[in-house]
Order: sequence, then C-alpha cells, then structure tokens
Amino acid sequence: MFPGRYRPTRGTKRSWSRPLPLAAVTYFRIALAQVNPTVGDLAGNTQMMLDWAARVDDVDLLVFPEMALTGYPIEDLALRPSFQRAAAAALVELAAGLNAVGLGQTPVVVGSLSIDSHGRPLNIAAVIYRGDVAATYHKHRLPNYGVFDEFRYFSAGTVPLTLRIAGIDVGIAICEDIWSNATPQPWDSTADLLVVLNGSPFERRKDDERLDLCVQRARQNDLAVAYVNLVGGQDELVFDGDSLVVDRTGQLIARAPQFIDGLMTVDLDLPTGTGTDAKWFSDSHTRETPPLTPGVAVALDDDEELYEALVLGLSDYVRKNGFHQVALGLSGGIDSALVAAIACDALGADRVIGVSMPSKYSSAHSQSDAAQLAQRTGLNFRTVPIAEFVHLFTETLHLSGLAEENVQARVRGVTLMAISNAEGPLVLATGNKSELAVGYSTIYGDAVGGFAPIKDVTKTQVWQLSRWRNAIAVERGEIPPIPPDSITKPPSAELRPDQQDSDSLPDYEILDQLLDLYVEGDRGASDLVSAGFAPDLVEQVIALVDRAEYKRRQYPPGTKVSAKAFGRDRRLPITHRWREQGF
Amino acid sequence: MFPGRYRPTRGTKRSWSRPLPLAAVTYFRIALAQVNPTVGDLAGNTQMMLDWAARVDDVDLLVFPEMALTGYPIEDLALRPSFQRAAAAALVELAAGLNAVGLGQTPVVVGSLSIDSHGRPLNIAAVIYRGDVAATYHKHRLPNYGVFDEFRYFSAGTVPLTLRIAGIDVGIAICEDIWSNATPQPWDSTADLLVVLNGSPFERRKDDERLDLCVQRARQNDLAVAYVNLVGGQDELVFDGDSLVVDRTGQLIARAPQFIDGLMTVDLDLPTGTGTDAKWFSDSHTRETPPLTPGVAVALDDDEELYEALVLGLSDYVRKNGFHQVALGLSGGIDSALVAAIACDALGADRVIGVSMPSKYSSAHSQSDAAQLAQRTGLNFRTVPIAEFVHLFTETLHLSGLAEENVQARVRGVTLMAISNAEGPLVLATGNKSELAVGYSTIYGDAVGGFAPIKDVTKTQVWQLSRWRNAIAVERGEIPPIPPDSITKPPSAELRPDQQDSDSLPDYEILDQLLDLYVEGDRGASDLVSAGFAPDLVEQVIALVDRAEYKRRQYPPGTKVSAKAFGRDRRLPITHRWREQGF
Repeated sequence: MFPGRYRPTRGTKRSWSRPLPLAAVTYFRIALAQVNPTVGDLAGNTQMMLDWAARVDDVDLLVFPEMALTGYPIEDLALRPSFQRAAAAALVELAAGLNAVGLGQTPVVVGSLSIDSHGRPLNIAAVIYRGDVAATYHKHRLPNYGVFDEFRYFSAGTVPLTLRIAGIDVGIAICEDIWSNATPQPWDSTADLLVVLNGSPFERRKDDERLDLCVQRARQNDLAVAYVNLVGGQDELVFDGDSLVVDRTGQLIARAPQFIDGLMTVDLDLPTGTGTDAKWFSDSHTRETPPLTPGVAVALDDDEELYEALVLGLSDYVRKNGFHQVALGLSGGIDSALVAAIACDALGADRVIGVSMPSKYSSAHSQSDAAQLAQRTGLNFRTVPIAEFVHLFTETLHLSGLAEENVQARVRGVTLMAISNAEGPLVLATGNKSELAVGYSTIYGDAVGGFAPIKDVTKTQVWQLSRWRNAIAVERGEIPPIPPDSITKPPSAELRPDQQDSDSLPDYEILDQLLDLYVEGDRGASDLVSAGFAPDLVEQVIALVDRAEYKRRQYPPGTKVSAKAFGRDRRLPITHRWREQGF
Repeated sequence: MFPGRYRPTRGTKRSWSRPLPLAAVTYFRIALAQVNPTVGDLAGNTQMMLDWAARVDDVDLLVFPEMALTGYPIEDLALRPSFQRAAAAALVELAAGLNAVGLGQTPVVVGSLSIDSHGRPLNIAAVIYRGDVAATYHKHRLPNYGVFDEFRYFSAGTVPLTLRIAGIDVGIAICEDIWSNATPQPWDSTADLLVVLNGSPFERRKDDERLDLCVQRARQNDLAVAYVNLVGGQDELVFDGDSLVVDRTGQLIARAPQFIDGLMTVDLDLPTGTGTDAKWFSDSHTRETPPLTPGVAVALDDDEELYEALVLGLSDYVRKNGFHQVALGLSGGIDSALVAAIACDALGADRVIGVSMPSKYSSAHSQSDAAQLAQRTGLNFRTVPIAEFVHLFTETLHLSGLAEENVQARVRGVTLMAISNAEGPLVLATGNKSELAVGYSTIYGDAVGGFAPIKDVTKTQVWQLSRWRNAIAVERGEIPPIPPDSITKPPSAELRPDQQDSDSLPDYEILDQLLDLYVEGDRGASDLVSAGFAPDLVEQVIALVDRAEYKRRQYPPGTKVSAKAFGRDRRLPITHRWREQGF
C-alpha cells in the first residue's frame, strides 16, 4: 500500500512484483509502516500513526520504526524530563487511539522513548495490545560513531523480548542491535521471525549493506527478518525507508520503495513457535483468503537514488520548519543550477526564487545561463546587479585582491538575506562538498543560507547528477532543467577577470579522488602518496582541507549522502597544529 | 615554580604559603607539570615538555596531565592511523629526550594516545623510565556527556596500574576515573598516593568540585592524591590548571594558580608501600635537605576567575591559530566594550582594532562611548560610517522594518570581514549568551567572526564583569577600560529610532534567571511557571530560544565558562516541533 506514490523507475536490480509459492491458509501477516514523523511533534506523529493504522485490516502484527512516535534523532530532548513525560503520555494516547481505530486485538510495535528506574532515557520498542503497553524492549547496542551519540542519550537494554503472536515466536531488535556478530545476540535465536525497528539514515550503497545484513541474520538463526525503517529528512539526515522482508533461507521476498512513506503488508509462512519464554498474545489461526503476493520495489539506480535523497532532504527541511519558499543565487554555474533543479523538484518551481546578481566580472554567458535556467524550470527569476554596491565598498574601504573578491560574494549574501527578511523564503547555500573541503567559498558570502542541499555532494557528482537529471527529463519528454552550457563550461567563481577554479585548485576529478581518501577514508598523507598522487598536490590539498575547518563550522546544514559528511560525521578541532607527514 | 607568572590576587579562600610540619629526611618528592600543549603539535609539545623537565631536579616522580603530548581533546584525530603512529613516535622521542635532560632515572608519567591490539585508540598514561615506556595505564571511565564524546574515540582500560617508586605505592588514574563512586575503582585502594592526570575544562565553581572530589578519594582510600591538570585554551574549552595535592587525611597541602602554566613540586610524607602487584622502580631513599614548604595559591574571586578564563580562551585561540591581531566592531555598548577590554588584556591594545560603524540610528553618545573606549584602552580605532551603504541597499532592494535593521548589521559584518581579508586580523563576534539564547542577533551581521569571546557569558554577567574590570583598574591605579556610560545606559541595538532591547525582551535580570533554568537546567515550562515566572513570559522566552537554534549553529566558537554552553554541551535539532507545555 504505497498508493499512487510508488512509481516504477529505471534500473533492474529489483522487481516489485514477484509471485510467492501458494502457501497454506495459515500464515502470518505483518504490516510494516514506513513512516515519516517529525522530531518532537508527539501529537502530530500520534495522529499520523493512527492514520496509517486505520488503513490496516486483518494483520497479525503492525510495526512502526525506531522512535517513530518521537521522531529520530531527538538529541538532547531525550534528556529533558518534560519531554520524557510527554512521550510517555503520547504512548498512552496512541494505545487508546489504536483501540479506537479497531486494532485493539492486534499487537502493534512502536519505537519510542522511555526512562528506566533511575530516570535514564531508553530507546524502546513498545508492544501495544488491547489499549495498553503490554511489553517493552530496550535497545541493547547503542551506536556511538559517525553521526550517532547514543551513549550520550540512552541506557542500554539487557533483556531480550520474544512475543508469541498467532502461534509464531517473534523476536524484537532495534537497528544497531543487528549490526554486530557478537554473541549472545539481543534476540532469542529460536524465534521464527525477527522484527527490526530502524532509524537508519541514507548513505550511498547503504541499501545493499542492509539487505546483506538481514540475509546474514536470517541464515544464522533460521528465522525470517522484517526490517522497517523510517523515511524522511531530519536536519542533516535523510531516512530512505527501504523496509524489507527476507525469509528463513535469506531470500528477499518484499521490499518497499525508498524515499516515500507507506505501508507494506507481507504474508509469511512460518513454523509454530516453541520458545518457552515468549510472551503470549494469540494462537495460530487460519484465514479464508490466500496469502498476498509480495512485491519487491524496482531499485533506483545510483544517480536517481542520490538525487531523490537530496530532494527529500530539502523538501522535509522546508516543510518541517514551516517555510513556504526558498531563495538562492543563480550564478549561471553548475552548482546553483543543480540546487535550483532539486528545489524545483522538491517544492515546485513556483516556490523557488532565483536571483541573478551579476558583478562587473560576471560574463555574459553566465548571465544568460542563469536566465535560461529560470526559463527552463519556471522558477521566479529576478536580477539584482551588484556592481554599484561592490564599487562603494571597494572605494570606501580601499579593497583589492581577495578582499575585493570576497566583497562581491558577501554583497550577494546580504542581498539574499534581505530578500529572506523581507519575503520569508529560506535561503539555500549552493556549495558542494569539494569546495567545502578545500575552503573554496566565501564565509558570509556564497556560504549564507539556512540549508545547503548539495554540501555532501562532490563536484564530480554534481556534474553527473546534472547530466542524469537532464537525461531523465528527455526520457520523460520534458525540458531538461539545466542549461547544457552550465554543465560543460569550465567552472569559475567569476570574482576577478578570467578567473577559473583550476587557477587555484587541481582538476576536480583528481581533487575528488584525493578528498575521498583523505576525508572519507581518514587516510594519512603517506597513504595518498602511495596511492599515486604527487606529493606536492597531497600537501597542498591537505593543508587546504585542514585550514578550512573554521569555515565548515559555520556552514549551514545539508543532507548527508556519503559515508562521512562534514559535520557530526567528521569532528575535528579548528585549533590544531597536526600536519600530515610523509610527502 | 610558577616563575614570575604567579601573582597574588584578591580573595581570601586560599593562601599560597603555609608551612608543613617538619618531616623526616625520607619523603616523596613529586613534580606536577601544569602545561599548555597545542592539539596535534607533537613536536612542539614534546619540546615544551622537555623544557619543563629540564627545570626539574631531584624529584621521585614527574607527572604531566591527560594527553599532554597530543593536546586535548584531539577529537577525530584519535581515529586517524597516521596520527596514532606519529603520537607513538613522539612518545619514543620524548623518552629519549628525558634521558638527555637528565631524567633517565626518574619515572615520568605522561598522558598520550595509543592503540590496543585491535587498533582502537586508547587514552593512556605512559610511565617513561630509563628512555623507555616502562608501563602503561589505560583510562577506564570514558566521559560521554556534556562536551565529551569519549566512547566515540577510546577503548576503555580494565587493568589498574600501581608503581613502586622510592618505596611508595603509586596508583594511576585519568580524569573521569575518579569521578564515580562505583567499585571497584580503577586504582589499587592500598596505594599510598594516587596520581591523577586530567584534562578538566574550566567551568564556574569547578575548582570547588575538584577539591571536594580529591578530598573524598583521599579519605575513602587513606591515600594522598596528586591532581595535575592541563592549562590553556582549545577551541571552546579553556583548561584552568588548578593542580592540587591533598594528603591522606584529605587536607589540601598544595594548589597551583589557575590559568598559567608552571611546575608544582611537593614533598610528601607517605608510608612505605606494601602492595604485591606494584611494578618496582626504586626503593625509598633519604635526602639531606628538609622537605619543601608547599604553597596554596590564593583563590581568584568569582569575577576574576571568569575574566581570566575569557582572557586565556581568547589569547590561546589567537596564538595557537597563528593570528597577530583581532578586529571588532565597537558600538558604544557594553558587549563590545567588554570584548575589547578582554582582547586588550589578552593581546595588548596594539593588537586590537576597534571599528566604529555608525548608521543614521547611532546615537551621539554611542559614538562618543566607542571613541572613549578606544582612548581608555589605547586600541587601534577607526570609524567607517555605514549610512551610505545601508541607503544603497534599502533603496535598491526597497527594504524596511526588520530587513532594513538587519542590513545595517550585515553591512557592518561585510566591513569587518573586508578589514580581515585586507589586513589579516581575526574578527571577534561580541554577542553574549543571553542574546544568543533568544536569537537577538543578526546572522551574518553582528554574528560574524572567527571567535566569540563572551558567547557563554550572560548579559547580567557582562555588566558584572565590566564593573569588576573597571574596579580592578582603579585599585591598580590604572584607567578603567570601559566607559561608565556603556555600563549604565539601557542596552540598545540602535537599528531603528529609539530602539531598546527592552522593546522585545524582558529585563535581562529576569531573562537570565529564566535561561538559567531552561538552558542550563533543562527544565520544562511547567517547572519555570512553578518557579514563579509568568506563563506568558515563559512561553515567549522558550519559543525564542527554540527558534534561534539555526542561528546558534552558525555562530562562531567561543570559550565555555558555564556548566552548559551552547554548542557541544547542548545538542538540539534545528528541525523539531516539540513545544513545551504547562503554561
């Protein structure tokens, strides 16, 4: 039940429709609710969950993802007693509401927040049944790496929970619980079905990892695995859904599409439970209808997956923070063109304001590329020439060189923020990850904005995504949003005559490879040299990356799509004198 | 040996000179090196430590603080293999150097970074002896709250380490190790002396907590405690030193001054060790000279302590990042006046550039207050009128209201950054914690800067510190740096005619009390109402604080001085819809 919102796409990895062998009329029906909550919106999330629950009919078990009731991650809200109390109250309300929508006799597993007897927060799976919380599981394994700080927030659970539902033994786990091979595992290995509640953020290729992991757990314990994940954007994270079910042999039998919310109902042929510790809910029963035919969503190809992540990350930031419009500077270059395309896809072109702010160094082709972008996408276009402002600053303050270059970027920043103050749009910063890495941006200039949609996208990926987006448009018979010139021309900040990025930076193809090793791989200089990069280049790039930390610290948030985004994923001091050696 | 740098100050809590009863000629002499390393500067830190070691003569044990060799906290550098290898190499170099400066026969305990057999980082105390690492202790208890994320970085130790030095059993602990009452403790309770290596950042009243803690541990285990702490600024943290020694009865017998580096040598009368697990270094020996008379530094009073923390935090940020000057806008108001005074004390007035940037709404008294501040302090003063810039923006972009107000602040930001680009000074943001809390600042306007010295100082504290600084000047026969008018006049942003802070905010005295409960105390709305604040006011202030999160995220770093600073101490999502209830 991804009604209307599921659309087949290019790519061949998965097929949404694949028949199961016809099973007996006794089967276990589970519904996985791939939902998009908002952090802290307890009333709204409760209602949203009840809306989904109301669409459920005749299932043995309904499961919502990790901390679906509170939203995730809630960060220091977990520590605030008033929020803890409100979350407890919302769970009671949800339980009553589930009764009211006719699910009183159906166990419903919900991720939320609770506290232990010492008042320490717990990341829980609550089993709601007949209007009450009938059982609770506490997440055992707390991730404390990358973007995660769960030792800061939660006390770890130590007791497994097994439910006997419709005669089947169902084990419960929460996200990180299944990522380690250490034994004993936090679930009963004799269970027939392992239900996993997740708040697993998108990264490139994470979908493959998740499937592999579920297959491994299924085979190790001879049990089916039902994996339900959140969907939606939350500050720098975007959850992609990708909920899935594998059978006892590790065969993928159902998979939900990424980046949209919905309900996936799957019928499973499972052996009757034998566990002695299982908490009893109901015995097995027969149905008069044959089991449903499950579907496996067609896989998105890598470009589409990345693009959709960026679209959802932006649209949810805008929606959940109550903005109605966005504004961005259009330079005619590829970064602002891609951000404009993403914004138009996320919000509709009528909610996007593009501002061309030519200076005396802006080329005619840049200005026409910006105008063409506006025409192609239909966004709201306006032009504010900045030469006069820049002239006044440079004359009054006697500026030249870098100071004059930066004043241009900062006048543009002031202009965009003035539009934001006057008309209310969220300003988007258009910098990419490669620029952010080496500090090739002007702080308080092109770096202004409330959100930076492509801050975790390398320049190489920017070009690739732009080509892909245009190609998709052609395939659909639409006008490609991005002017081809913006894709093909050499990149330039146009802050001085005939300036090109290549004046101060290596080719982006080389740079991005180096950054991949240094930033994502955390490899030292000698490794980079061993990998074949020129020592001088390695030294230059590392120095640039290290020196730009202070700029990154003040950069707006943006959607994480890589294994290591700048921000919470990579935490380095501003003040430090470590210099990589081995050039 | 805090040569020259120790100066007696006001206050009466402690006295630097207090005679010990004359002891036998057998005593244990320990030197605590309260040092100021720079994160990542392995060569520089090694040399600095050797310089201190070279001044040590005839001691039984020399101790450096937690991670003194690497600097602290090193954040994700801990995870980088190239840095781990370099830290190991630096330890070898330090060991050789200690031999060279004549300490080959003296055990020296040094905090640094190592890795375990799985390659996971360890926070260690290395015992260097005869040119080698003779023993290693791994920190057992890893703080993962407040500003600390040590579960992210370190693997926890599990084995205590006891050293038999000069016949005495010496236990080792690192910082957080001693903060819990849980048993077993990570040190051997039969030891005679517990040596604690610390990286304990300053917070108001932390000195009292530390002493109480050491007294408690001494009494519980009947052992003397030698506590050695880092000193110096590191991004948002400032370490205050405050190294101390308590005897077996819990009596404070020596205490180093806060905020300066130095060596504190203490002679202790201790029983001969009896532990069977102690690693042997040397038997007891006699000396021909009587024991030294230890000193207890005169306590700083609360205002001086806070002011010194801010001075050191700023001066180390400037020095360690290689800046030569700072620049800030001078409005004539109290915040910029206090920051200017701190900067002049930290760097000398000749390295401080103050820029008056009057707009058409700037009052004559503000401009004269700014000029007077410059005259009183001797900083480099210049005036850049901004009316013409603002006029051009407001006319061209048709701005009024908030947009026009903010353009003034942003033009000032552009001006300061242009000066920074042209001449190189670090720009200081002058906002205080109360403003930052409620978002009473202009992002990319008065919020521009590389460092924000008073971002963790409330407005009430700003006034109090300003009065204190002026009073101290009078006491010293100097010119009080801050114009009295700046202290006494009602605060105003002067962005529109007759604007006053009280137009949009409650009185700062009330506001700061509310913020203390909501921000530092993490109390909910109903608690605030119960505490006697008007429900409307509570609702207004909480809404302001919650909405300003996005501004705080892009604010420059600044010295943490409270129990909960904005930044790593308080981590909240930007996107969230939790609204406190109970008005």
